[in-house]
Order: sequence, then structure tokens, then C-alpha cells
Amino acid sequence: MTTSVLINQQFQLAARPVGMPKPSDWNFISAPVRELADGEILVKALYLSLDPAMRGWMNEGKSYIRPVAIGEIMRAGGIGRVIASKSPKFAIGDIVSGGIGVQQYWVGAAADKTAGFYKVDPKAAPLPKYLNALGMPGMTAYFGLLEVGQPKAGETVVVSGAAGAVGQSVGQVAKHKGCRVVGIAGGKEKSDFVVNELGFDACIDYKAGTLKEGLKQHCPDGVDIYFDNVGGEILDTVLTKINLKARIIICGAISQYNNTTPVKGPANYLSLLVNRARMEGIVVFDYADRYHIGAAEIVKWMQQGTFKTREDIVEGLENFPDALLMLFEGKNFGKLVLKVADE
Amino acid sequence: MTTSVLINQQFQLAARPVGMPKPSDWNFISAPVRELADGEILVKALYLSLDPAMRGWMNEGKSYIRPVAIGEIMRAGGIGRVIASKSPKFAIGDIVSGGIGVQQYWVGAAADKTAGFYKVDPKAAPLPKYLNALGMPGMTAYFGLLEVGQPKAGETVVVSGAAGAVGQSVGQVAKHKGCRVVGIAGGKEKSDFVVNELGFDACIDYKAGTLKEGLKQHCPDGVDIYFDNVGGEILDTVLTKINLKARIIICGAISQYNNTTPVKGPANYLSLLVNRARMEGIVVFDYADRYHIGAAEIVKWMQQGTFKTREDIVEGLENFPDALLMLFEGKNFGKLVLKVADE
Repeated sequence: MTTSVLINQQFQLAARPVGMPKPSDWNFISAPVRELADGEILVKALYLSLDPAMRGWMNEGKSYIRPVAIGEIMRAGGIGRVIASKSPKFAIGDIVSGGIGVQQYWVGAAADKTAGFYKVDPKAAPLPKYLNALGMPGMTAYFGLLEVGQPKAGETVVVSGAAGAVGQSVGQVAKHKGCRVVGIAGGKEKSDFVVNELGFDACIDYKAGTLKEGLKQHCPDGVDIYFDNVGGEILDTVLTKINLKARIIICGAISQYNNTTPVKGPANYLSLLVNRARMEGIVVFDYADRYHIGAAEIVKWMQQGTFKTREDIVEGLENFPDALLMLFEGKNFGKLVLKVADE
Repeated sequence: MTTSVLINQQFQLAARPVGMPKPSDWNFISAPVRELADGEILVKALYLSLDPAMRGWMNEGKSYIRPVAIGEIMRAGGIGRVIASKSPKFAIGDIVSGGIGVQQYWVGAAADKTAGFYKVDPKAAPLPKYLNALGMPGMTAYFGLLEVGQPKAGETVVVSGAAGAVGQSVGQVAKHKGCRVVGIAGGKEKSDFVVNELGFDACIDYKAGTLKEGLKQHCPDGVDIYFDNVGGEILDTVLTKINLKARIIICGAISQYNNTTPVKGPANYLSLLVNRARMEGIVVFDYADRYHIGAAEIVKWMQQGTFKTREDIVEGLENFPDALLMLFEGKNFGKLVLKVADE
């Protein structure tokens, strides 16, 4: 096929947002796809992963990954199909996962380390699940909980953003390891979902204003592990309920990402002292050499029917800016995925 | 001797302080010392330890130790002499360390677990040092740094309250373990002391307003371990300089103990995420069964002349309320000790 006739729609970062990203922070452009050089592949985006971490990549400053530059295509992981290949590494028709970016087509070296494409098996699971439990959110949950949290059977694990991408998997991994699992989610629908569909022992609807009471009721033996995706008041409240030697896994702080005022630090952090407890950050990339182990265990549970996930799929690349905001408004119900093209 | 003729001056907690403790929060009373029963000892207080942690013991609420009750003698560790004994455990003349309380005489069972008296050797070190490097502050430093901090030779260790009781020992233990040590202290005199007398590699005078610059200058390879005694802005600033896999030991937060507003949480706590770092609390009592190991190593260093400490000794039990305030105003220079009687 001739790649030069393809037109590639792309979202570039136009400006660094102040607070919530707004339409003028993006350039939505069209550019022709260039010819492939030797060793290169052309990937057609099918699904893109929308994640809270994207907000951090839009900021300047030192972080665990370099910021997206102004004028650069916005970074995004995704699932795509190889539609042209001049590399022995991938064949036309292969389904791959990697750093596609917010665009319709990715072209570059098959071995590009930043993109990090690898083949996935479309028969083992529906493709969007490779952006959820079998992708970064699942690996974040799996290694964050098991490596940083070190759960023991019988312990109580609390997870915020329980119906979100990471939260869903945290709770189910913890259940598989014999823990009592209590979610925190926004709204009755999400709370019911994690209990009835995912098998959490309980879920507290923080929007009903009952977090403190809920923790008291559902964590009668206190909190041994707290997996925090949200920060802010929720982190502070859970800190009042932790046990001796508790572990708090800092995975994110979605409540703080769009602040125009300074981040709210956890005022109750001295609970770490009183309880000889530990608060530790996790970045999933550190476990890249063991993703296959985590994914294999989760696939096994999925095939046994004891591990479920929910994706919230928005269609159309052009809807990227609005879809991203859903994350920060708590409007997504399940892992947020942008469908860019039909499979 | 007849113990009933002795009059015991004591400080009782009269009210729970709001903010800085004030004179009316104390009752200064005199009571006769009762006769000894079998198994009991009478200890004459010589030196009492004044520590930031005392402020916490005056508050209601769950903590690592129960609050001092209203009307109860204020809790304090101290060094005293056994002046009467009906127990085979201690003889008259023994010098002991334990929970004497803010009073002239302690009477009770020799085996009392709360007081926890044990003999110290007055020939091995001057008595006030048993309240400093050879007592709780030294053990806090030793086990907090080594067990929670897990220092490796060549790493950079930063310690706040560097001229204070815990800070002095943290820095010197770290030097003995091959680390680069940078203190943070208030004022030039204290800063010069920890460098020139204690052998820290550098010390930053935060009162000169140069903490951020000072860290940049004196920690060219970043911060691997931060031992925090102060909290507040200093903790927040150090969080901007930590390395990957850094360890932050939360030992105290003297800047926050007298707050009448909520504690200032560390706004930069997401640096833990970015750096996969860990923040963990330490309570010295957890290491009680190994104090003898820590004390033996520090005594050895003292005898080699490579471990020094400084005590700031205030005389007179009646000066307890004012002396305690020195801690929160940064007016003590070295471990604060209240001398109650001549040796």
C-alpha cells in the first residue's frame, strides 16, 4: 500500500494548561503520513488510553518522565494495527500496544524504545482490556499493591478511585490475595458496581459525605493498606484510620492535578509517625521487565471468571479534549478509552 | 532512712494547652513521699529530659502513647539515684534511668514497666549523656537512621534540628556509616557547631533564608535520606531535592506541635511518587530490646573521641515550664536537660 495518501489527524499540545485543560491548549491538525524507511512500521490507532497522568505530562518541570513539549503530539498509550511494515519485528495485521500518541497513525522504527510497541493477542481478551487490567493501569495496580503494599491475607485494603482503571484492579488483586477490600468511589452507581460486579467487600460513596463513618463501619479492624489515586481530603481522612505498620501507596492525586493553588499536603501525615507507617510512591515503568508476569496472572483470573473490568469507551479522535476532562470531573465509569477506528 | 520526711515537688498537668503551654496549664505542688512497700524503690531525680515529644503527650487523642491525664504528674524520662530500696533489683546508690516524671522523687515498684528503670554506669559517661546520645534521642537517631533509613556509604543524609538532641546523633551515626551529612539548624552558632564540633560536612542556617540554595550547594548529588524533626516548610523544601528511592524518616514536627490551626501537610508529597520514595514514621520504643546494641556502639565511638554531644542544662525543677518552651522557640543549644539536684 502507499502510505503517502493517508492523512493523519493529530492533537498537539499548544499551550501548558493553567488549571483544567481548555480547548486552546490543543492544536488539532492534519498531516500526511510519510513513507516508511527500512526498519519502520505504520500503526493505525484503534484505541487510546486516557489517563489522569496525562495532566502531569502537560506541565513543565522535573518528573518521572519528560514533559510533552509545546507543539509535540500529545503522549498516549494505545492499541493499534500494523498496516505497513518494513521491519521483520512486526507483520501487517499484528495488533500492538505502545506509545501511539493522540493521533490516527504512528510511524517510526519498529524498535523505537519510547513507543515500546509489543504484540498483544486479540483472542485472549477484548482489545480495550489491554489498556486496562492488561495494560498500564493493571500493572500499576498489580505491582503497586504487591511490591509496595506487601499485602498479607486477612489485612484490610482500602482503594480510592475504586471504579477507575487502577482502582478496579487493585481491589481485585487484593481479593485474590485474601484481603478484605473496601473501595472509595464517587456516587452510588460506581459504589454498587465495585461491590456487586467486582466483588469488593464494601464501597464508600464519598459524595454522600460519609467517608469517615464509612471507614469506621467497613474497616472495623482499621486500614492496613491504602492505595491512593486521589489525594486531598480523602487521603487525609484515611490517614486517621491506619493501623500500626500501615502502607500507603501513592499512585496519583487526581483531586490535585488541576489545582491553580498549591497542592494540599496531607495534614494528617504525622499519623505515619504515630503508627510507624509508610507512604511510598509507585511508577509503573519500574516494573516493565515483569509486566508479563503480572499480565499472565490477571489473564488467568479473567479466564477463570474471577477478574472483571469495565471500560468507558468514547468514540472519535476529535473528542479527545472533552473526553480527557471526564477523568477530572469523575464522569467516566470505568477505564476511559478513546476509540479512534473500528477494529 | 525515713522516707516520710521527704517533701516531693511535682508538676502536674492542670489543663490541656491550646497552642504554646502557658503557666496555668501546670500545677506546681508539694506532697510528702510515702513509705516504701516491699519490692519498691525510691529514686531521687538528678536530671530530667525535656523533649519536643512532651508537647504531644499533653494532648488528648490516640497516639503512640497514652496522653498524660489532667491532674497527673507530667511524664518525663530522667536520671536519678536510688536512695531507698526494698527490692533486690536495685541497691542504694545505684544510678538509674527511667520514667521519673517532672518531680523530685519517684517511688514505686522496682519492676514497674511504665517507668522501666535500668542501671547506668556513671563512669562510662557523664550522666546527662544518658538522656542524650545514650538515651532516647540517641536511640531514636540510631535506629531511625539505620533501620528506617537504611543508609549506604556515599549517600547524602540531611537532618533537620541538627544541633538538637536527635539531630546531633543522626548526623554522627551517618558519618560513621560513610555518608555525606548536611544539617539544617537555626542560626550561625548552631550551624558552626555541628560542622566544627560534630564533623558534619555542612550545615544550612535556615534562619538565613537560604534553605533551597543551601541544599543545592551542599547536596550536589541530591538527598538520599532526610531525617525530619521539624516538619512544615523545611520538610516541603527538602522534598523538592530528594533522589530516586529516597527515604524520609518522620521523627517529629516541632514546627507544628503548638499549632492552633491544622498541621501543615507536606504540599510536595507527590515528590514521593515521582521519585518512588518513601516516608516512614519512627517511634523509638519499638527498638527497646536492642537499645543496648545501639548504646554500646555509641559509647565505643565516644571513647574513641569520634562521637560528641552537647547538652544545654537548665537548673531547678521550678524552671520546668519556662525551660520546656525553649524547645519550641529554638532557644536551647544542644539536648535540653533540667538539672533537679546535684549529683
